[in-house]
Amino acid sequence: MNKEQIAARFQELQDNICRGLEALDGKSLFSEDQWERAEGGGGRTRIITEGDLIEKGGVAFSAVHGPVSADMKKQLGLEGEEFFATGVSIVLHPHNPHVPIIHMNVRYFQLDDGTYWFGGGIDLTPHYIIPEQARLFHAALKAVCDRYDSSFYSKFKPWADDYFYIPHRSETRGIGGIFFDHLSENNSSLTKTQLFDFCLELGNTFVPAYAKQAELGRELPVTPDELRWRNLRRGRYVEFNLVHDRGTKFGLYSGGRTESILMSLPAHAAWEYNHAPELNSREYETLNWLGTKQEWL
Amino acid sequence: MNKEQIAARFQELQDNICRGLEALDGKSLFSEDQWERAEGGGGRTRIITEGDLIEKGGVAFSAVHGPVSADMKKQLGLEGEEFFATGVSIVLHPHNPHVPIIHMNVRYFQLDDGTYWFGGGIDLTPHYIIPEQARLFHAALKAVCDRYDSSFYSKFKPWADDYFYIPHRSETRGIGGIFFDHLSENNSSLTKTQLFDFCLELGNTFVPAYAKQAELGRELPVTPDELRWRNLRRGRYVEFNLVHDRGTKFGLYSGGRTESILMSLPAHAAWEYNHAPELNSREYETLNWLGTKQEWL
Repeated sequence: MNKEQIAARFQELQDNICRGLEALDGKSLFSEDQWERAEGGGGRTRIITEGDLIEKGGVAFSAVHGPVSADMKKQLGLEGEEFFATGVSIVLHPHNPHVPIIHMNVRYFQLDDGTYWFGGGIDLTPHYIIPEQARLFHAALKAVCDRYDSSFYSKFKPWADDYFYIPHRSETRGIGGIFFDHLSENNSSLTKTQLFDFCLELGNTFVPAYAKQAELGRELPVTPDELRWRNLRRGRYVEFNLVHDRGTKFGLYSGGRTESILMSLPAHAAWEYNHAPELNSREYETLNWLGTKQEWL
Repeated sequence: MNKEQIAARFQELQDNICRGLEALDGKSLFSEDQWERAEGGGGRTRIITEGDLIEKGGVAFSAVHGPVSADMKKQLGLEGEEFFATGVSIVLHPHNPHVPIIHMNVRYFQLDDGTYWFGGGIDLTPHYIIPEQARLFHAALKAVCDRYDSSFYSKFKPWADDYFYIPHRSETRGIGGIFFDHLSENNSSLTKTQLFDFCLELGNTFVPAYAKQAELGRELPVTPDELRWRNLRRGRYVEFNLVHDRGTKFGLYSGGRTESILMSLPAHAAWEYNHAPELNSREYETLNWLGTKQEWL
């Protein structure tokens, strides 16, 4: 399985996810933006806006290559002259505050010396946390993990808790999910092909897992206060992505394609000084859930 | 002139600016939030919202002290055991897109070994750039600079251009202004007292300079397209502050008071994938002005 085959399968994954999301949304279609990178490679960024379910979302595929920069050497702690990286990234911001924001990424990286790894993750950011829905989501992820390695979920779940933490708010971004990086046959029980299958299966779980979450919230009535809260939570999402997310920061600092990187930002976000929800309100409960790590299963 | 006197004068400056802005706004008043810092010192953060002119703004005073952390040593490239820092920071987001966003900061820093410096800056971010208004603003700043040192404006204006640059957008944040740091009697023609007077005079120029900008735009009619553009420009402001602004990043990473640091964010901001204004529209012209450094005077 070479890099061209991996990139081709990731492209198929992007196609399948976009078709699935269009069916789920029922109103808007993705528009595609193809781009090339001067140093090598390119991508297809697909954006959906003003849907029935999704207000703004993106499903991006890219496959880029080129010389390993000094920044990359520093960041990776590795030597190598040429790199190749391909993957699929998704962020969806729904209209209805009773439907969570979702993010997924699966990626493959290799150096010309034969070093390679897979990375990825999927995590959910409900505007209102409902433990039963959080359990559903985590159970779906654990099921995929368990089909490959019974230790994956117990390793990748806390990794997501750590990764999606907002130190300056002392909050997790949402209910987490799984996150992994630098995964190869050298540090797992699986072959390269099996690891890739794991990434693809995770990708194929995205639409049904999100469909379940969407179904539970999309028809619920919405008050102006709930929209206000949604926009404040989106503000936190912006803070995490711009201040802490390593992928976003590395991309922006290293001259990545800004519009593709920042497709993760919501259509509208809000900030209020020192906003504090009413004691024991659902907003208050949500902040409580975010304040400490939770075992959802 | 000791640190207590400097802090007291900065508090007076905060009082004067808040009074001036309340008069300018004509509707809303500031509310004050006093806070203390566990390691030493504290501040008074003042917030104005839902005014006639200002949608969201803050005028913050702080005076903090404590042991010099490892992070600070690294950032400052200096040794010292105890630091003291005091200053006034302002960001105002007006309702009307024909009135610019404005930011100001004046600050004093000292170490227990006698090392000290002043820093600060004032810069304007019009949603729509009008060269004549940009000139008015820069002329007011140059007049203050020139009363102290005829080289200040020519040094501090390009410093602001560099500081308020958004590399991942290849844009300046706005029309700039002046920025300076590490200013002391050792690297200027002025005494410590004169440098402090310069900072205070800059502070006292803030309200009249902004009043002039506000007067030119606040009564202008506003279309939905102009509000959309305002919110997109605010999105850029958020990007600059969270991704690049050294003060914001240092504050958030070093455990500063998050609500005071992020009072700079707007009430509402927006993002659209790959938004590009119509050729030769006023939005297009504004982007053109932001794409290269301008000599406004």
